[in-house]
Amino acid sequence: MFKVAIVGATGAVGAELLRVLEARNFPVRELVALASPRSAGPQLPFAGGMVTVAPATPEAFADCDFVFFSAGASRSRELAPAALAAGAHVIDNSSAFRTDPAIPLVVPEVNPDAIGPDHRLVANPNCVAAIMSVACAPLARVVPLRRLVVATYQSASGAGALAMEDLEVQTRDYLAGRPVIAKVLPHPYAFNLFSHNAAIEDNGYNGEENKVVFEMKKIMQQPDLLLSVTCVRVPVLRAHSMALNIETTAADVAPLIPAMQAALAQAPGVRVVDDRDRNHFPMPNEASGADPVLVGRLRADPSHPGAVNLFIVGDQLLKGAALNAVQLAELIAPRRRA
Amino acid sequence: MFKVAIVGATGAVGAELLRVLEARNFPVRELVALASPRSAGPQLPFAGGMVTVAPATPEAFADCDFVFFSAGASRSRELAPAALAAGAHVIDNSSAFRTDPAIPLVVPEVNPDAIGPDHRLVANPNCVAAIMSVACAPLARVVPLRRLVVATYQSASGAGALAMEDLEVQTRDYLAGRPVIAKVLPHPYAFNLFSHNAAIEDNGYNGEENKVVFEMKKIMQQPDLLLSVTCVRVPVLRAHSMALNIETTAADVAPLIPAMQAALAQAPGVRVVDDRDRNHFPMPNEASGADPVLVGRLRADPSHPGAVNLFIVGDQLLKGAALNAVQLAELIAPRRRA
Repeated sequence: MFKVAIVGATGAVGAELLRVLEARNFPVRELVALASPRSAGPQLPFAGGMVTVAPATPEAFADCDFVFFSAGASRSRELAPAALAAGAHVIDNSSAFRTDPAIPLVVPEVNPDAIGPDHRLVANPNCVAAIMSVACAPLARVVPLRRLVVATYQSASGAGALAMEDLEVQTRDYLAGRPVIAKVLPHPYAFNLFSHNAAIEDNGYNGEENKVVFEMKKIMQQPDLLLSVTCVRVPVLRAHSMALNIETTAADVAPLIPAMQAALAQAPGVRVVDDRDRNHFPMPNEASGADPVLVGRLRADPSHPGAVNLFIVGDQLLKGAALNAVQLAELIAPRRRA
Repeated sequence: MFKVAIVGATGAVGAELLRVLEARNFPVRELVALASPRSAGPQLPFAGGMVTVAPATPEAFADCDFVFFSAGASRSRELAPAALAAGAHVIDNSSAFRTDPAIPLVVPEVNPDAIGPDHRLVANPNCVAAIMSVACAPLARVVPLRRLVVATYQSASGAGALAMEDLEVQTRDYLAGRPVIAKVLPHPYAFNLFSHNAAIEDNGYNGEENKVVFEMKKIMQQPDLLLSVTCVRVPVLRAHSMALNIETTAADVAPLIPAMQAALAQAPGVRVVDDRDRNHFPMPNEASGADPVLVGRLRADPSHPGAVNLFIVGDQLLKGAALNAVQLAELIAPRRRA
């Protein structure tokens, strides 16, 4: 049984981490819920009891086996060294360490072997990259992928619990004929969409798009994978959708499509949703709260003989964050027992 | 001054046709509002007075100069011959005649010359194709386009006024904790999105996607233009957004980007919205009710030296339907006077 700490326990991902640890029966001996001094104080339900949220300080990590960080990159940079010094394995949900070549960035269904025996800090990927890689990995085992052109439909949850609440508040106001005021994200959100709110960087892409490009290459362990990504926020609460155009190395991909379908059907972490007669394909309302990434609409691209199109939806808070983090702890757990 | 009839005057597009004819001071001598016998009866405001909606019958077209059809393909097929026989010019908003090689499919900013002296029936394009072609045509004048990979974010209005209302009703129900029941479109729509509701055809693409592919080639007058399209409905009321990956014939498109920016800035029917510092790009709330297609985020594609990405939003009811239809009548009007 393990002593487990969560830094950022009061956030949207923190709440899911508590739920997922419980739902998957992760062997927790003691749970330490941590947050910024400002957010400390409340009690959170866990495993039939209540835990009190304490301030996240270096001393809080004493005797911990696992520390999950989900409170932003600067908090991770500040406190992860103390958690490691306390002997814990650290699973970091922020972007702080993802680009460090010495630190593995892992989706258990895709690159579990990237965690070596000496790695005590593992980075949990960006939500888009985590969800997308689960769907791409089975295809890449059928035929190597060359280039992905991706457009995302990202939910409010990626911007946190307050953004989800703000989407509901704005929508209520819109429907009541009241003025709609954006409080969390920079643009009106009720019945509206906008380019992802991450700042635009020097190459003209926003921070989210650049993360996805970098992280997909690292998770897929394919430095030469080409990606073009457009990230968009849509007025959906908690699941991210993506339209993928996938160019493979095959001169003619059509004969491989049955094998690709079979690979998806058997892939861990994937549920195929593809009922053409009923026009039923992956949707956020069916992905929300579900562990698997929903995948459908695999079809040959009439504009390129080596390409296919695919539509996928995954719960941003689960496979995009908390579920993947707990799966990483499950991967590591046998090692700590030994 | 012209006698003008609208078939489908009580629908979402019909209502916009009335407004656009009035706002653009189209020289209307008499307006005839028509609908199915079921929808006939109500009075609609036009040019300071009221017009009564009459049943659409062949006799209703007597002496008409222009007849706009916006009541679905089967109604157009049934009644357009009578309107032509009555001597009118017909502008058809349905898909009934778009694929007929003898009938021009026209966006005035893109291919006005496709209307020859003997054409009395002109097809108004699918909303996605109309909006997209306005943004693509200026780029194609800088460098020929080879292939488009498109993901759409389509609003409720494309499925009609009842779908817009249903999105609002479902959202109210969701926020009130009541069951959400899809009445018009086949899936729950409140805070949800889904693959476009058009039926899946033999090639695995839905009818909307296949329309866009066909119509873009015809409007752009480029039969060898390659397209890959994914059409998705998002919970937005009346503007369609699109993420475009545009492969040009240039070996290296980067040096051409300033010329492409300039072409967009000067293009008729286009408004560039591209403030990188404020993260302000095209959005449905700013495109709704606006004539121009909003265009932004033109940037080189790091995954292909000849490609760029672009994000565009246009009002589905205006440039995607009623505005383009009235612009077609404006193009033709000088001919009828002569």
